[in-house]
Amino acid sequence: VLKGRPGSDWILTTDHLVEGVHFDLKEARPSAVGRKVMACNLSDIAAMGCRPVAATVTVAVPPHVTLADLRAVHRGMRRVSDPFGVAIVGGDTSRSPRDLVIGVTLVGETKGLRPVLRSGARVGDSILVTGRLGGSRLGRHLRFVPRVSEGWRLNHRYRIHAMIDLSDGLGIDLSRLLRASGVGAILEARRIPIAPAARRMAAESGRSALEHALGDGEDFELLFTTSEAEARRIEADRILGSLVSRIGRITRAGLVLRDSRGEERPIEASGYEHEIRSN
Amino acid sequence: VLKGRPGSDWILTTDHLVEGVHFDLKEARPSAVGRKVMACNLSDIAAMGCRPVAATVTVAVPPHVTLADLRAVHRGMRRVSDPFGVAIVGGDTSRSPRDLVIGVTLVGETKGLRPVLRSGARVGDSILVTGRLGGSRLGRHLRFVPRVSEGWRLNHRYRIHAMIDLSDGLGIDLSRLLRASGVGAILEARRIPIAPAARRMAAESGRSALEHALGDGEDFELLFTTSEAEARRIEADRILGSLVSRIGRITRAGLVLRDSRGEERPIEASGYEHEIRSN
Repeated sequence: VLKGRPGSDWILTTDHLVEGVHFDLKEARPSAVGRKVMACNLSDIAAMGCRPVAATVTVAVPPHVTLADLRAVHRGMRRVSDPFGVAIVGGDTSRSPRDLVIGVTLVGETKGLRPVLRSGARVGDSILVTGRLGGSRLGRHLRFVPRVSEGWRLNHRYRIHAMIDLSDGLGIDLSRLLRASGVGAILEARRIPIAPAARRMAAESGRSALEHALGDGEDFELLFTTSEAEARRIEADRILGSLVSRIGRITRAGLVLRDSRGEERPIEASGYEHEIRSN
Repeated sequence: VLKGRPGSDWILTTDHLVEGVHFDLKEARPSAVGRKVMACNLSDIAAMGCRPVAATVTVAVPPHVTLADLRAVHRGMRRVSDPFGVAIVGGDTSRSPRDLVIGVTLVGETKGLRPVLRSGARVGDSILVTGRLGGSRLGRHLRFVPRVSEGWRLNHRYRIHAMIDLSDGLGIDLSRLLRASGVGAILEARRIPIAPAARRMAAESGRSALEHALGDGEDFELLFTTSEAEARRIEADRILGSLVSRIGRITRAGLVLRDSRGEERPIEASGYEHEIRSN
């Protein structure tokens, strides 16, 4: 959050995708890769309840990527940025010896609102999430519509205490929000909205659909906390429809899952994390 | 340039460096690479006569790069960003299969001034440049101090019509400025400030020191145009000292070099340009 003149703070976020790590051009088309890297950044702005404005793009282009591929990347980016009125205003292109690397930096504006941070959750808050979770890698991760309108409307009409988008999995991302806020949480297993794709994956993986919903990541849904009264109002109002599920409550410490029999067990913050060699 | 509230426009710029294209970790230390990618971005803000404020960083990390290397990259960045009060406010890290890729996006502010563009040069303008040119690849490209203070002071105290930083070479970058402004130029060969390193390179390359000054690139000096009266004022004032050379004049069209005997020949816009396969 960059402080500007009163009522005009700016939000800055950046995300990049690396060939061979985040995508494989044998499986994902260049337009889908472009769409995704832009959508991930839009999702970050959405999670702060702000309006995206403009993007810059860096592309490192290996020999096997053609100009037609790059046009497709650009087309994919604009397919998801245009509907939100976001312009690609500049960037940097260069060669790359072997792998395609695409970076996007997005600027958003607060338009007089307070940006929602991860750190505002309070004991007693309800925890809510948009959409359904798990199994995104079966295809949804390339097609998701970032929750820009929802994030903005939530921030505009309600007092949202803390918010984060689900990139690395409900377990990990909720843990991040809890750590930033210095609180804990209890989740109700039966209230966690499970995506059909999570059930399809569970049929083959030997893990439960709930485990997929908790750990898969790449959902890019919004996870947020607010007072119980406000949560009821959000559920009752039509503007977010049936999109929102109330899945738990903020506590003093720890992170536990209560199953349908009322038994509680700690959740490990499992999910997708990057590794960097430490020496 | 992002339009904010009156008097508070924001400037956005991005640059990335790719291992095996822009640097080689056998030749350049990680701290030098970090310093350079930040300095290139600072130079872009300098060329608009604006103040840099905050940066985001993306790093794609291959197996051969250690956490100590990354700390050195960060240290190198801060070595050049701290003196200008620029904070690294966020970023994104991930694995990379093979090559280190570092991207920086920098936000600047206009502080009530008009950002200087490439497109404002007028027929009759004087063309000026800071510093000395050529041979940067012998080492200066890793050590240069971006002309942030100079760019800001020029924009603050004088009516600069057009400005660009010299990343790809005087020939190419001047051509870009001319094209953006719809004008031409004549350069005086004897007035072009030649760096000692350009002479050292000329002794081995078989090309003249002047050719190195025109074509080498990576100087990261400021090239700008202003009225002849204003140019004299800049030369007479002490604030930029002996740093500034008046090297030519804006004409209606074309780009020619006048040598010491008064003979004129066209300049090709030679220098460092990237290649992308077109199908």
